[in-house]
Amino acid sequence: MADFRACRGGRVKIDINCDMGESFGAYRIGEDEKIIDYITSANIACGLHAGDPAVMAATVGLAARHDVAVGAHPGYPDIQGYGRRHIETFPGEIKNYVLYQLGALSAFARAEGIKVRHVKPHGALYNDAAGSERAASEIIEAVKAFDPDLIIFALSGSLFSEMAAAAGIKVANEAFPDRAYTRDGRLVSRNIEGAVIHDIRQVRERVLSLARTGKLTSIDGDEITLHADTLCVHGDTPGAWEIAREIRLSLEMAGITVTAEALV
Amino acid sequence: MADFRACRGGRVKIDINCDMGESFGAYRIGEDEKIIDYITSANIACGLHAGDPAVMAATVGLAARHDVAVGAHPGYPDIQGYGRRHIETFPGEIKNYVLYQLGALSAFARAEGIKVRHVKPHGALYNDAAGSERAASEIIEAVKAFDPDLIIFALSGSLFSEMAAAAGIKVANEAFPDRAYTRDGRLVSRNIEGAVIHDIRQVRERVLSLARTGKLTSIDGDEITLHADTLCVHGDTPGAWEIAREIRLSLEMAGITVTAEALV
Amino acid sequence: MADFRACRGGRVKIDINCDMGESFGAYRIGEDEKIIDYITSANIACGLHAGDPAVMAATVGLAARHDVAVGAHPGYPDIQGYGRRHIETFPGEIKNYVLYQLGALSAFARAEGIKVRHVKPHGALYNDAAGSERAASEIIEAVKAFDPDLIIFALSGSLFSEMAAAAGIKVANEAFPDRAYTRDGRLVSRNIEGAVIHDIRQVRERVLSLARTGKLTSIDGDEITLHADTLCVHGDTPGAWEIAREIRLSLEMAGITVTAEALV
Amino acid sequence: MADFRACRGGRVKIDINCDMGESFGAYRIGEDEKIIDYITSANIACGLHAGDPAVMAATVGLAARHDVAVGAHPGYPDIQGYGRRHIETFPGEIKNYVLYQLGALSAFARAEGIKVRHVKPHGALYNDAAGSERAASEIIEAVKAFDPDLIIFALSGSLFSEMAAAAGIKVANEAFPDRAYTRDGRLVSRNIEGAVIHDIRQVRERVLSLARTGKLTSIDGDEITLHADTLCVHGDTPGAWEIAREIRLSLEMAGITVTAEALV
Repeated sequence: MADFRACRGGRVKIDINCDMGESFGAYRIGEDEKIIDYITSANIACGLHAGDPAVMAATVGLAARHDVAVGAHPGYPDIQGYGRRHIETFPGEIKNYVLYQLGALSAFARAEGIKVRHVKPHGALYNDAAGSERAASEIIEAVKAFDPDLIIFALSGSLFSEMAAAAGIKVANEAFPDRAYTRDGRLVSRNIEGAVIHDIRQVRERVLSLARTGKLTSIDGDEITLHADTLCVHGDTPGAWEIAREIRLSLEMAGITVTAEALV
Repeated sequence: MADFRACRGGRVKIDINCDMGESFGAYRIGEDEKIIDYITSANIACGLHAGDPAVMAATVGLAARHDVAVGAHPGYPDIQGYGRRHIETFPGEIKNYVLYQLGALSAFARAEGIKVRHVKPHGALYNDAAGSERAASEIIEAVKAFDPDLIIFALSGSLFSEMAAAAGIKVANEAFPDRAYTRDGRLVSRNIEGAVIHDIRQVRERVLSLARTGKLTSIDGDEITLHADTLCVHGDTPGAWEIAREIRLSLEMAGITVTAEALV
Repeated sequence: MADFRACRGGRVKIDINCDMGESFGAYRIGEDEKIIDYITSANIACGLHAGDPAVMAATVGLAARHDVAVGAHPGYPDIQGYGRRHIETFPGEIKNYVLYQLGALSAFARAEGIKVRHVKPHGALYNDAAGSERAASEIIEAVKAFDPDLIIFALSGSLFSEMAAAAGIKVANEAFPDRAYTRDGRLVSRNIEGAVIHDIRQVRERVLSLARTGKLTSIDGDEITLHADTLCVHGDTPGAWEIAREIRLSLEMAGITVTAEALV
Repeated sequence: MADFRACRGGRVKIDINCDMGESFGAYRIGEDEKIIDYITSANIACGLHAGDPAVMAATVGLAARHDVAVGAHPGYPDIQGYGRRHIETFPGEIKNYVLYQLGALSAFARAEGIKVRHVKPHGALYNDAAGSERAASEIIEAVKAFDPDLIIFALSGSLFSEMAAAAGIKVANEAFPDRAYTRDGRLVSRNIEGAVIHDIRQVRERVLSLARTGKLTSIDGDEITLHADTLCVHGDTPGAWEIAREIRLSLEMAGITVTAEALV
């Protein structure tokens, strides 16, 4: 894997990303206008699992005005399931879903005079990419066909991260400061108690630890190490923007620059 | 209006276009594989009124292999209504629908190493563009924002055609050899008897007349003149490809070259 | 029109209705659990413009547990537009949309051991019913075919209200305490300033006036009279349940019984 | 299992069923008007995986005019996947999908003065019901809540068939004359060569064998026995109605009455 991170063993730069533009018609999700102040990369839904053309235009515009890097956040075609349900696909179908969504988002970026810079799969597609070779390889194919300069956001240490790097694509390894990890570096399923960390002090500590050393304590008490090029903050819970602000402030105060430039 | 047609009063070149890629999942419409042999421009549905990512990929590939120019065929977001129902929109909404679909299609074109070359609105959006200033102007804005080199396919003599030309966009004026026209150059509504011309001999005559002089007899018996840069053939009726072949042969035998180059 | 109202010129009973079950998948709209305490009729979305089977089951259950009368709230098939966009239809199509939604909701009612008691069209379909003879007559046909004992909720004084009564269907004339009216008894469009009355004191006065005398001051200052069998409260704005509570309390304190029995 | 079949070891009556009403908007699938002459039970799509309110109304009317028993053909909510893709669900979700669709179809039956008589899950839901205890039990719960007199069509010998019978629901065991079976009575996957039997003579023999003795030769050459209360014919391939006619004639000529009464 080509190591493009600014710094190992003590980062000086890190990226903060957030899923955005997940409203649909009259349905609102997220507090994009508030959270945009604290992030550096926006993963924007592309209309198949969430988002619609009006929401996409508004969200790309919002990111552009705040100098936040724009990425596609493609999902399975399933508004009712919000992209959280795995969908069976034929060979090549995932590649086509990703191409479709990359293209659609890029039109709004072009209209704003900017470029789509990264891609991060959503929900069930994110999980499938992390663990399934076919899903991972079809997303990578789509990226290579559409724009090989795109940065792929992948679960740190996942098959997807490895495969993308091996294919010569820039990878941003992603970590989740408010999620518990297993001892082998996987996310603890949300169905298990303790999977989501709500205590803001604890989140802050994990943020700093991830940025400085990549070390975390797993849910079983073991020490694990994650490469974290970008930290994910969630936008779809009330008060999410306050957590995002805390995370941003903690990093800045620790002398770590929060910037999408951390990824190149 | 910038006149980019090859020739007036006796064309030597003309384009033939057809709507394509209108299947959806298990639902099949059209005989794309057959009709592709006789056309020079393919208007490809983009997933909002018809088409899906798998169909789009296959259709762009088909057009590329046959050296047929690829265009976007955007419609209102309404699979159930097949884009034939007018949808009320907020200001800016049509522009966003068109941007979305242009972008989505262009990703498949890019994956094939080709470019989207033209755009032709579908169904209710085509009719709205022909007659409504807001619809026309939002489509034009989308084209300017996405790629000002795109060619707009517009009903010959329509408001849309005039506005696009005035905005400095290349326009291909479109005529329908198998449709009756009113004396003021509009299409006779399909609900009126005689609106669709089924007699192949008559269609052939109209094709030649449109290509050579632009002159047609209206449904009321008046002579009208249309600029026809491109002739539309329909793909969604059984045997449509035979009509397309007849049209193509008639033109070739009359010494008129059928080529998408007629449009530049 | 069969007059089934409890009382003219000084009601002793009135119904309060609210649109409910308008969430969809992960998308939440409304505070149904809070507002249910203050209403007597629930108009439940049926999956075409909002709602999904899981939401419908939960909402019917909620209404059943609170002894709130269950009604269908059918709309045009348009989740993205939330049923607010008029959709062009073929003759008979509206009847079929309404039948479909009445049937779907009735299955959940049956599973709870209750019956669907009324029907109130949603959004654009409500407006079309109020003003278009075809829309009104197709909805009435659907009701007659499905269950002629259903009560139709119609804009007080509208064509729909008159046609339903003339067809022998029970009608609940509906008034909106927080909406301004024109001098001829129509709702002022939301686009016009003053269309929605936010001042809770004023809403309370209008509620009492509607219940006692049916008299209201129009937006132009004229006195108009409306028959109000049922008052609509809105559920989809933050704090809506507090307005509902105010309305309910005002009526109860004025000695007017709030009950769905007001409608039979 | 309550045995409600007319006759064992030499049937005198059998039912023929076909999936119907699977068109959607402008998209046509099936030759319902032709095949209706040869079948006795119609399984009608309910709008979630195929069908729409207009198609449902037309199909219920068609069945009613031909005295063909009407059944619901519920599927997963997935028009694009035509109900062939398994969809992950929360507990209770399948029950709600089935209730919704049973109710929706029953409204059209009521408008025709008839009743929904049976239910047969579609595509992935059919497969899930055959093999998954949760899917089977949720469908059974929906039937019990909606109308315990409905007949459940289930793959002959499947878990679903057993569970439905054990729950006191009438079951019609279904066999597929044109599909190959494994030695343990399961359908051979369509991906395997020989899964679909195209030779009409062979289909005719299997029809008679299924009706008379229930005996079939499996794809591996073993003799298996199936209870066949109803035979499924397919409607979505060109010429399907001719196969249906052959099957019907073979049975009639062998002195076996083809009637939906075979199921009660």
